[in-house]
Amino acid sequence: MSTALLTDRYELTMLQAALADGTAQRRCVFEVFTRRLPAGRRYGVVAGTGRLLEAIADFRFADAELDWLRSAGVVDDATLTFLADYRFTGSISGYAEGELFFPGSPVLVVDGTFAEAVVLETLALSILNYDSAVASAASRMTWAANGRPCLEMGSRRAHEDAAVAAARAAVVAGFAGTSNLEAGRRYGLDTIGTAAHAFTLLHDDEESAFASQVASAGPGTTLLVDTYDVTRGVELAVAAAGTGLGAVRLDSGDLPTLAREVREQLDALGATGTRIVVSSDLDEHAIAALAVAPVDSYGVGTSVVTGSGAPTCGMVYKLVLREGADGELAAVAKVSAGAKSSVGGRKVAGRRLEGGIATEEVVLTSPDADVPVVDPVAASGDVLRPLHVPLVRDGEVGEAWTGSEGVQRARERHSASLAELPRAAKRLSAGEPALPTEVVVV
Amino acid sequence: MSTALLTDRYELTMLQAALADGTAQRRCVFEVFTRRLPAGRRYGVVAGTGRLLEAIADFRFADAELDWLRSAGVVDDATLTFLADYRFTGSISGYAEGELFFPGSPVLVVDGTFAEAVVLETLALSILNYDSAVASAASRMTWAANGRPCLEMGSRRAHEDAAVAAARAAVVAGFAGTSNLEAGRRYGLDTIGTAAHAFTLLHDDEESAFASQVASAGPGTTLLVDTYDVTRGVELAVAAAGTGLGAVRLDSGDLPTLAREVREQLDALGATGTRIVVSSDLDEHAIAALAVAPVDSYGVGTSVVTGSGAPTCGMVYKLVLREGADGELAAVAKVSAGAKSSVGGRKVAGRRLEGGIATEEVVLTSPDADVPVVDPVAASGDVLRPLHVPLVRDGEVGEAWTGSEGVQRARERHSASLAELPRAAKRLSAGEPALPTEVVVV
Repeated sequence: MSTALLTDRYELTMLQAALADGTAQRRCVFEVFTRRLPAGRRYGVVAGTGRLLEAIADFRFADAELDWLRSAGVVDDATLTFLADYRFTGSISGYAEGELFFPGSPVLVVDGTFAEAVVLETLALSILNYDSAVASAASRMTWAANGRPCLEMGSRRAHEDAAVAAARAAVVAGFAGTSNLEAGRRYGLDTIGTAAHAFTLLHDDEESAFASQVASAGPGTTLLVDTYDVTRGVELAVAAAGTGLGAVRLDSGDLPTLAREVREQLDALGATGTRIVVSSDLDEHAIAALAVAPVDSYGVGTSVVTGSGAPTCGMVYKLVLREGADGELAAVAKVSAGAKSSVGGRKVAGRRLEGGIATEEVVLTSPDADVPVVDPVAASGDVLRPLHVPLVRDGEVGEAWTGSEGVQRARERHSASLAELPRAAKRLSAGEPALPTEVVVV
Repeated sequence: MSTALLTDRYELTMLQAALADGTAQRRCVFEVFTRRLPAGRRYGVVAGTGRLLEAIADFRFADAELDWLRSAGVVDDATLTFLADYRFTGSISGYAEGELFFPGSPVLVVDGTFAEAVVLETLALSILNYDSAVASAASRMTWAANGRPCLEMGSRRAHEDAAVAAARAAVVAGFAGTSNLEAGRRYGLDTIGTAAHAFTLLHDDEESAFASQVASAGPGTTLLVDTYDVTRGVELAVAAAGTGLGAVRLDSGDLPTLAREVREQLDALGATGTRIVVSSDLDEHAIAALAVAPVDSYGVGTSVVTGSGAPTCGMVYKLVLREGADGELAAVAKVSAGAKSSVGGRKVAGRRLEGGIATEEVVLTSPDADVPVVDPVAASGDVLRPLHVPLVRDGEVGEAWTGSEGVQRARERHSASLAELPRAAKRLSAGEPALPTEVVVV
């Protein structure tokens, strides 16, 4: 499947004009960053990088795409000829997937000709904005859960393909598994799920539904006990599976109270090893409120796939450096309106650590062609951990970042970066970004 | 591309147990409905129906899907054998795409065996929940725009495939076009877009950028005039294209004031026919605030693809009628927790109209196998407009609802249904659902 038409029309009309006037071959650097975090959030989580690299490899214009562009009159023949041979031959660096970001963090740097780099804008932003929105919400949930597993169950509340990406992003940010089968297949994720209320209702009574499920899935299954009366449901569940019953799931009601009652009932029945899974409109705040309840894992749906109030990131893809008519590279930036101004020049970034604790995001930029270097050890003894990693070199995608290996690596990066944050950053309450961003022109 | 794994794992584990215990072949009716609208919203818009029907036709388990299910140990061999031959042979009726809905509206009714119907749950909800969220927001924007065209430009703020669906849903709800090329190709939508700030910055100065764009796209193009100084930008734009310049776009700043100034400047320059397009974080409220500004069209991004604060609908897929061990059909419903209870029994619906104005959503249900009939003409002279249309009959998808014809038909349905609403329903301010829903057990 080509990804080439997952693109705003203006990328191609700009390309047409630039091919005609000769500027299309100018070397350009575009950067992806966000101007602000969602209100009250302390940090964001970069996600989608691996998916983006896979999508760039599939960004090719075959006959089907070219025929439609021609028939719809989107671009002229010269542009179609260019697109027929299109592949990205430039280089891309960026924050490793799973890394934390802050306002102004240069999370992706795309270096190539204008023609090759501009057409990737829409695709890059679609992927990074959605996946990062999900991962940023999921990260808050996993630390609110404080070690108890979070399970992603939100496929039905997201576009059917977004659901696959959401499952992946949630796992990057620490979720233990997902209900989504395609995400399991594509990225090697653990998939979970046993039964819905419909299964109980299909049967003539709860006893026969539970007996059927235990016969099919074994006593280690999770039985959903709240279709009728919960107390009766728990009793029947243990009767059906024995005290080795894997888990019961509660999907409605006042969960803190209910979990306590069900735990007591299970223990009294001798099912002391039977776990309690809760679901039902959980978000990070509801998870935190269940911290002292005897709950063993959390099924999270709507809130994680919709970014818990922030369904997209505000990441933008901006031209920051370009070759001029004189052949020299020069920093550029939109300058008209205050809120949308940005800093020109190519950037690199490091995270300052004092005694292992992050204290600052340092963004280095230069007004000319030189690429600033992040010096890992400052004179003061602080560490400046470099944040950019190479993702694409001369058109070759780094394999370490894609597929299921990429997800695993991103998950580790996320966990390590989160461990560096000061304790105050891990509050659910609204506040300023956890780290200030210092921009240094060198 | 098979859509079969865009599915929660529990649909297949339920299937396995039901195949083993003999209940899989019981006739079942599942219904899709929502318990509430997003806070303050007056109505919702059904969208995605055409996409769902296309996705159901592609819901087949081929070797790739079966091999993974086997290797991951999701289901047993008997279930894999069933899935290998799976196709939906039942019937589906529902609200026509583009129709308005209210809490309790039975927007989709799926009638088939448990085995055939249960596995469609996740896919049906993913599509209807996302597409309806976008269309519900887009509908508010199009009437806030009061006849001025709204253009969908939000691809970069949504998952890359969700963006295609969002463009389609926005057009169903009255948008005039989209920036998304794949949506243009797949659904025959008008695509729009000319240039971003990067195109101006690529060039050595604004003059050469505008000259290049006019040479490439003709003077009827839209020039983006806010990269540097807007007044100077407008002057250069008219100098480059002449007074026949198609439009200027403003993407930042205080738009009501700026639009007025730019209109005066354009008129003074003789460019009286040059239109003004505004973009920059517009939502329905910002559009309404521009009602008296001299603006010709609205480019809408983030807010439309994220449902303007409501990024998903709360639609659920519930078993309401099923065959029991006695072979009789019986109404069923979850009964434990108040908020999640629902009304059992198969439903049909009609919209009551008095003098052409909608006054009530009437939902008829029956506790047994009989399907209630909506009688179009009540004794009082009111009209009860039937809301269900046949979508799939014995596995055959109605072609009128899919592809670009389906989008066009949905757009007409939306427009006609909106015209029936009382004036008070078309307020942006928060309020109760525009129509009460009356459930009648017959």
